[in-house]
Amino acid sequence: MTTTHTLTRSLAIKNETKIVLVVADGLGGLPLEPGGKTELETANTPNLDTIAKKGVLGMSIPVLPGITVGSGPGHLGLFGYDPLQYNIGRGVLESLGIDFPLESKDVAIRGNFCTLDSQGKISDRRAGRIASEVGVKLCQKLDDIEIPGVEVFVRPVKEYRLVIVFRGEGLQGNVYDTDPQQTGVAPREAIASENGSHKTAEICREFLKQAREVLANDAPANFLTMRGIACKPAIPTFEEVYSLKSAAIAVYPMYRGLARLVGMDVLDAGQTLTDQVKCLQSNWNKYDFFFIHYKYTDSTGEDGNFPEKVTRIEELDAIMPDITSQKPDVLIVTGDHSTPSKMRSHSWHSVPVLLSAENCRFDGSASFGESACRQGELGQFEAKYLMLHALAHAGRLGKYGA
Amino acid sequence: MTTTHTLTRSLAIKNETKIVLVVADGLGGLPLEPGGKTELETANTPNLDTIAKKGVLGMSIPVLPGITVGSGPGHLGLFGYDPLQYNIGRGVLESLGIDFPLESKDVAIRGNFCTLDSQGKISDRRAGRIASEVGVKLCQKLDDIEIPGVEVFVRPVKEYRLVIVFRGEGLQGNVYDTDPQQTGVAPREAIASENGSHKTAEICREFLKQAREVLANDAPANFLTMRGIACKPAIPTFEEVYSLKSAAIAVYPMYRGLARLVGMDVLDAGQTLTDQVKCLQSNWNKYDFFFIHYKYTDSTGEDGNFPEKVTRIEELDAIMPDITSQKPDVLIVTGDHSTPSKMRSHSWHSVPVLLSAENCRFDGSASFGESACRQGELGQFEAKYLMLHALAHAGRLGKYGA
Repeated sequence: MTTTHTLTRSLAIKNETKIVLVVADGLGGLPLEPGGKTELETANTPNLDTIAKKGVLGMSIPVLPGITVGSGPGHLGLFGYDPLQYNIGRGVLESLGIDFPLESKDVAIRGNFCTLDSQGKISDRRAGRIASEVGVKLCQKLDDIEIPGVEVFVRPVKEYRLVIVFRGEGLQGNVYDTDPQQTGVAPREAIASENGSHKTAEICREFLKQAREVLANDAPANFLTMRGIACKPAIPTFEEVYSLKSAAIAVYPMYRGLARLVGMDVLDAGQTLTDQVKCLQSNWNKYDFFFIHYKYTDSTGEDGNFPEKVTRIEELDAIMPDITSQKPDVLIVTGDHSTPSKMRSHSWHSVPVLLSAENCRFDGSASFGESACRQGELGQFEAKYLMLHALAHAGRLGKYGA
Repeated sequence: MTTTHTLTRSLAIKNETKIVLVVADGLGGLPLEPGGKTELETANTPNLDTIAKKGVLGMSIPVLPGITVGSGPGHLGLFGYDPLQYNIGRGVLESLGIDFPLESKDVAIRGNFCTLDSQGKISDRRAGRIASEVGVKLCQKLDDIEIPGVEVFVRPVKEYRLVIVFRGEGLQGNVYDTDPQQTGVAPREAIASENGSHKTAEICREFLKQAREVLANDAPANFLTMRGIACKPAIPTFEEVYSLKSAAIAVYPMYRGLARLVGMDVLDAGQTLTDQVKCLQSNWNKYDFFFIHYKYTDSTGEDGNFPEKVTRIEELDAIMPDITSQKPDVLIVTGDHSTPSKMRSHSWHSVPVLLSAENCRFDGSASFGESACRQGELGQFEAKYLMLHALAHAGRLGKYGA
């Protein structure tokens, strides 16, 4: 079957153009009432509006209408990988989120420290929410567990959360969670859900057996459960599918990890937007494609803080001239999903897209916002097609058929 | 592969929300001339317009652009079942249309009484359009036919039209029509079009052999032809794919049958919109999802009666306050296809959609009509995604991926 990537591989043209993709996490929002404005529409964004006048707008659907996505599928879509085809397991995402350098032979697992009572039943699924420092020490102990034939890595995430990685030949990731999602029962055995994963299940059981001994005197964190047991997905790189040398400039580990997953170089982004733009400028000549991630449009939405999300959008707007001054051939500003402060969560609503390039079919947009994007030239499209727009506007796609 | 229903099954959240889907059959229309208004735009619809102000609009494509659908695929799409995947045979649809309680082992066939001349060739494909009362009596005679190993049901539809159902183990539905679609030739033999259907073909031949004897003296209806030989499709229920307890409030048998096909309870809808709304009100606490079907927007379109279609839309508008007073969490008003009175038939044109819910991205719509729907927040989408919108706005879908 001809997929998007079959096309991009066969049509790819190399040239000197630069593409910048700015992802304002959870950018899309909601008006608080009929006739009202969204966060993006409320924000004073003179720079984004100027870019809109020189570009085109549209609305992106992260996966399918009505489907709310997490960060993983949200970003994969923006990167042009069908999120329904490339499913990233929870364990993998958790590992990416702590900057763990996953390799192709890895199985990654999200662990939760828990409390077992004297009968071996779970009395607290989060081990009394132990302090992060305690979790760090327990992970160090567990990291010493040895299992013949595989390497074992145990890393703390936060409080009772941890990541376990098994590295070895022929490991598959299809093992049921051992977390029973309730108290008063024993943790489940690690059981393969598919035939190829019996070896992984066996390793999980051996690890849990040893962990029970190691943690025996560490109540309330005297055991752990496993969830989201998953392989690093086999995923082609940006270089392979788009012939793009690409770099990620992201402050948060999760987004660095997602970029690394598709083969981007992960640059030192610093801590602020200003740091990120400096990084962009100093690496300008080294790459064809830059992914800049901005987190605070999402976190303020999650907090239900409409005015703060507006402020964070205005902060992003303020930095835009430092990006446009680099004269990217294609500049895209969008989000991986909507996070309306009204809902205090990710949502299914489509996401505003702004694309500026020499050969845009300028659509007369005067400002960047949901209402304007609904009427834009790009129309409403699935996020997985965004990279096609990017490549096309960069002159990096040849003609399909004679 | 991940399908819409794989997603809805895995992401389903149960809650107390109520979803009401009002289907005005053939709602979409055409202006009679450039610059003119459609039937829906011509109608005075203050109540629908008020709902539009509190909701969002869009345009639904029943199957694919340019494809005109019948009631079967039109409704399957609205119910979230890909009409290209779930093909409902003509015989099955015809059986649903007379409220025949099809079971999973049934093969259903649309029959036409016809006239054979002395040489056994068809001289009239509709048996002189015999009166319905005559058809009823002939069907009673045919219903007595006995074939070892299967149950035989013969039911009148109208005039020369009838339904034949064979019930038995292992029957498949892939048998060619025996109707040659022309006069002056003999009816065709019943021949299997796929290997698994030889038994069904044999039963058809035996039935037709006996029918020829039974009807020998009943000219002009001295024989019958068979069309649309089909199995009841294996189709998952609303409860299975959406975790919704659902009910249909439809006056016409065809729509009750389509609802029954996807596992809805079929309620006593009475005869009028007022009856239907009373039924909605009295069953409000028993279901999560209500499908209300309104036929007259289609039949007036088929009649080519523009002003009458306008009147029928206004009748629907007048009843809307009795629906909104129930305070559904999600209210959708749309059609299964367009039936422009200008064309006197179903058409391929996209269909107006109105959705109202708390977490809509209000799009500033002031009225419900084709022009406004083109600019709406929901954009243009395939009908099979409507249920995703419904579930999302009802808070009944969890997040895809972390």
